[in-house]
Amino acid sequence: MQNILRVDMTAKAITSEKIPEMYAKLGGRMLTSRIIRDEVPADCDPLGDSNKLVIAAGLLAGTPAPCSGRLSIGAKSPLTGTIKESNAGGVAAQKLAKSGIRAVVLEGKAEGPFILVINGTKGELLDAKDYVGMGNYQLVNELSEKYGNRNAYISVGPAGEMGLRAACIANNDPEGRPSRMSGRGGLGAVMGTKGLKAIVVMDAKEDNVNYADKKAFMDNAKAAIKAITDNPGTKGFTDYGTAALVNKTNTLGCLPTRNFSEGVFEGADKISGETVRETIIERQGSPSHRCMAGCVIACSNIYPDENGKEIVAPLEYETIGLMGSNLGIDDLDMIAELNYVCNDIGIDTIDTGAALGVAMEAGILEFGDGPKALKAIKSITERHEVLGRLLGNGAEITGKVLGVKRIPTVKGQAMPAYDPRGLKGLGVTYATSPMGADHTAGTTLRAPVDHRNPAVQAPAAQKSQRTVPIFDTLGLCMFSMGGLMSVRPVLVDMLNSRYGWTFTDEDLTSIGTEVLRIERSFNKSAGFTAKDDRLPEYFTKEVLPAADTVFDVPDEQLDWVNEDLD
Amino acid sequence: MQNILRVDMTAKAITSEKIPEMYAKLGGRMLTSRIIRDEVPADCDPLGDSNKLVIAAGLLAGTPAPCSGRLSIGAKSPLTGTIKESNAGGVAAQKLAKSGIRAVVLEGKAEGPFILVINGTKGELLDAKDYVGMGNYQLVNELSEKYGNRNAYISVGPAGEMGLRAACIANNDPEGRPSRMSGRGGLGAVMGTKGLKAIVVMDAKEDNVNYADKKAFMDNAKAAIKAITDNPGTKGFTDYGTAALVNKTNTLGCLPTRNFSEGVFEGADKISGETVRETIIERQGSPSHRCMAGCVIACSNIYPDENGKEIVAPLEYETIGLMGSNLGIDDLDMIAELNYVCNDIGIDTIDTGAALGVAMEAGILEFGDGPKALKAIKSITERHEVLGRLLGNGAEITGKVLGVKRIPTVKGQAMPAYDPRGLKGLGVTYATSPMGADHTAGTTLRAPVDHRNPAVQAPAAQKSQRTVPIFDTLGLCMFSMGGLMSVRPVLVDMLNSRYGWTFTDEDLTSIGTEVLRIERSFNKSAGFTAKDDRLPEYFTKEVLPAADTVFDVPDEQLDWVNEDLD
Repeated sequence: MQNILRVDMTAKAITSEKIPEMYAKLGGRMLTSRIIRDEVPADCDPLGDSNKLVIAAGLLAGTPAPCSGRLSIGAKSPLTGTIKESNAGGVAAQKLAKSGIRAVVLEGKAEGPFILVINGTKGELLDAKDYVGMGNYQLVNELSEKYGNRNAYISVGPAGEMGLRAACIANNDPEGRPSRMSGRGGLGAVMGTKGLKAIVVMDAKEDNVNYADKKAFMDNAKAAIKAITDNPGTKGFTDYGTAALVNKTNTLGCLPTRNFSEGVFEGADKISGETVRETIIERQGSPSHRCMAGCVIACSNIYPDENGKEIVAPLEYETIGLMGSNLGIDDLDMIAELNYVCNDIGIDTIDTGAALGVAMEAGILEFGDGPKALKAIKSITERHEVLGRLLGNGAEITGKVLGVKRIPTVKGQAMPAYDPRGLKGLGVTYATSPMGADHTAGTTLRAPVDHRNPAVQAPAAQKSQRTVPIFDTLGLCMFSMGGLMSVRPVLVDMLNSRYGWTFTDEDLTSIGTEVLRIERSFNKSAGFTAKDDRLPEYFTKEVLPAADTVFDVPDEQLDWVNEDLD
Repeated sequence: MQNILRVDMTAKAITSEKIPEMYAKLGGRMLTSRIIRDEVPADCDPLGDSNKLVIAAGLLAGTPAPCSGRLSIGAKSPLTGTIKESNAGGVAAQKLAKSGIRAVVLEGKAEGPFILVINGTKGELLDAKDYVGMGNYQLVNELSEKYGNRNAYISVGPAGEMGLRAACIANNDPEGRPSRMSGRGGLGAVMGTKGLKAIVVMDAKEDNVNYADKKAFMDNAKAAIKAITDNPGTKGFTDYGTAALVNKTNTLGCLPTRNFSEGVFEGADKISGETVRETIIERQGSPSHRCMAGCVIACSNIYPDENGKEIVAPLEYETIGLMGSNLGIDDLDMIAELNYVCNDIGIDTIDTGAALGVAMEAGILEFGDGPKALKAIKSITERHEVLGRLLGNGAEITGKVLGVKRIPTVKGQAMPAYDPRGLKGLGVTYATSPMGADHTAGTTLRAPVDHRNPAVQAPAAQKSQRTVPIFDTLGLCMFSMGGLMSVRPVLVDMLNSRYGWTFTDEDLTSIGTEVLRIERSFNKSAGFTAKDDRLPEYFTKEVLPAADTVFDVPDEQLDWVNEDLD
């Protein structure tokens, strides 16, 4: 069974119906973007009645395919005004697939909050007044006590309830931490303002994941596992997690430092993947951890304090970059604490880190002052704290209000932890992705190109941007990409043996372009043009000292990236 | 002589040249909008290098035509993103005309600040470091001591220097008060970020205003004076000033009250035009005052405190509405004080009043609490006061950051003191004007229609919107409209006897449509569409208690207003 569960928050009415034929071969990002493009008026208020929040499992969710439990959540973004898909790990996609649900579509708006409990293919809306304003950790703790600890919990913290434009949606990991974030684009504000505090996906009694050819599927899944574990890049992620990137980007001169004004951080050693690992081992935490069943990489970690008590899990690169070097903070414990508070109130660490960076450049806070940054983040949920309200709405609005010249955003969304002057291919993706600045839209960090040569970036960025949607649609983690792209027939065969389709390699390739085409058509209707596919002017004029260059990929190259799609 | 003075702030280069043929018959708003449409990239950053600030005298400036000294200042607005013309009284237009200058065009951007001194048709840029951060009153006082008290001073306060999006440009009145504001659209931020603190237009030794037929001009000017003074509407403005509107709009149920949530204010009597007049007379101030030579209406006033010491001059309706009833404040002295501080720091009282209203709705401040509102306004120029930064950027951004549902803005600009549910024709203008919510773009307050009947508003708004640009282009005050539109041949004859043209009545009419066509073509290039020509949704859904109606003019009627122009 493969259903779409539609929840009309205005009418408090729920329907669960077999996925219609036109959507039957879509999953993950391809499904969220397609439903939004088809059903959401492009010019609607993202926090109004007409927006929809679509939560979709990938096509391989619930199977033994490795790393296949990524969840796609999409909507019109209140941060960017574009279409948005935000992708996270955790257990939800697998629980949805096992329940027989391909996607949940939230429509309308209620005076909430409510909790949506999904049991099999049915759903029920329950009053959630007791949970108003509650942080994600306490919330999921209480819900787990009530509903059990084998379920998926998809929730918003107070930031989402308040409709703050940098609010995220939390998904629990296998141990129940609400720390796998659908972080970007402010989708937590969409869920919160629809009046939904949490979704409980009850662990299904009966497994609805069936196979056209189970043996073939299992053989291919094994081959997929081998491809990932054999890939030379995988071990670094297992040992050091994403934090391995600190030294890499610092060496490349593109580690955002003090509000993207420098690309090398003098305190990089103190916040590197090596230091993270050593600190965790010394304190008897876990340097490797899986955010979902079936993960064979384990890039996650559990970061404890000096007494061995968990501060946050995971502590990842983007947060270390945006809330560490970007703020001039070289204290991992402080960064972990900032991270925990962001998770708890439900706010994106990337946009909030970037917002703190511009507030520091404006002189409202000071670079390197962790305690004041922490206090500022805590004030985000105090309705009458104006600085908090500002930070909670993201870096762009914070920078505009505070009159800062360097605002590291594209289409209203903050750049993740790679200065586009030192990694120009990702700069091309920041500019040209349908979703604003987003490394998960197509990084070029591992592409075999000179990252500072402006002439070679556009093809690399295009290739990456057109590969990512395949993984987002199948529900595969992007860290499996290096391994799995070397065994593409295995991906095709898994789809065919799961569903009885006759997918070809060309079909796989076309997912990449089709997803982008759908997303760009929505954005076009919302008024976006080639002029929006640009970086902020200062990146093209102000030399980044560490990289000794500006972002100089010509506009024509930026336009070339998508010109065959429109 | 009729020159255009071009000031390149980047190169610190000034040229003064005879107005080119294609602009020779343009003045005021028609000239500012035309130069901007022709020369400013529609998609540029309004606070960047490419925007231009154009200051133009009207076609009748410097002549004895009554009420003919209005000044047009135009640019791409940092508040709305649209083209903008902001219109003010004061002495500048007449001084420019007498100097032989039709328009000043400020281009580029300097690390300022500088002062531009205009002497005859020549200009000079002088260092202004001594005046950094200075309020308008002290600034113009010091400049008057240095340059004399018969000059025009066009200046920005600290709000403009800081690039705040609600910053205005101040123009002095005949006695030297920098209180005739080019208030809307944040044009002070454009001037300030270009590095220009003030323009001194030296009183010309030689009068450059010549006539093709002086006697004919004088005869027509006399007829124009008679038409205005004979108009029954004029006396109300002379006696009570614009504040006469308080009772009128309160009776209509459209006096903005507590952030546009009510349309009748229980304290209206205490802030009415009658009370303003009585208070001024009792305190020996001036209930009637002229903002420019040649004014035969004298709607302005000088408002003193209990001891007879001037608080502010003038105290006008829009400020009383936005900073009085809209904030639940019924104390005229407090409103006058709020007004003075806004003038001094150089910030628009309409957008700032609306911003305070949404901050009050958000619970950051309290309705009725004048001293706290005053403190908040004073904090606008303290760079590290986040609430101040927010208010200084206007009502829309304040409302968005604070999460307020009722944000009374169109295209980013706050509504003046008329709730569009009680005065639906002006609501049509708010929605469809090229400049966002602006009563001076075409009010219907005096149109002979039932202001609550949705079926009859669009033609009334269209007529008004197409009349206003004629007055803005000739440099005539809109309070002369009632009188002068009854003697249209007099207007045509004044133009012809001044310039030796062969203007016809049709030419006069076509100014109205041509100006709007120019402005709309700029906005179209900047990405604005019919979808932007709408009021915020809540006006169409939430009944205004006093008027017992929503804004229900159909979208098709809104689109009809301009459909023949594009």
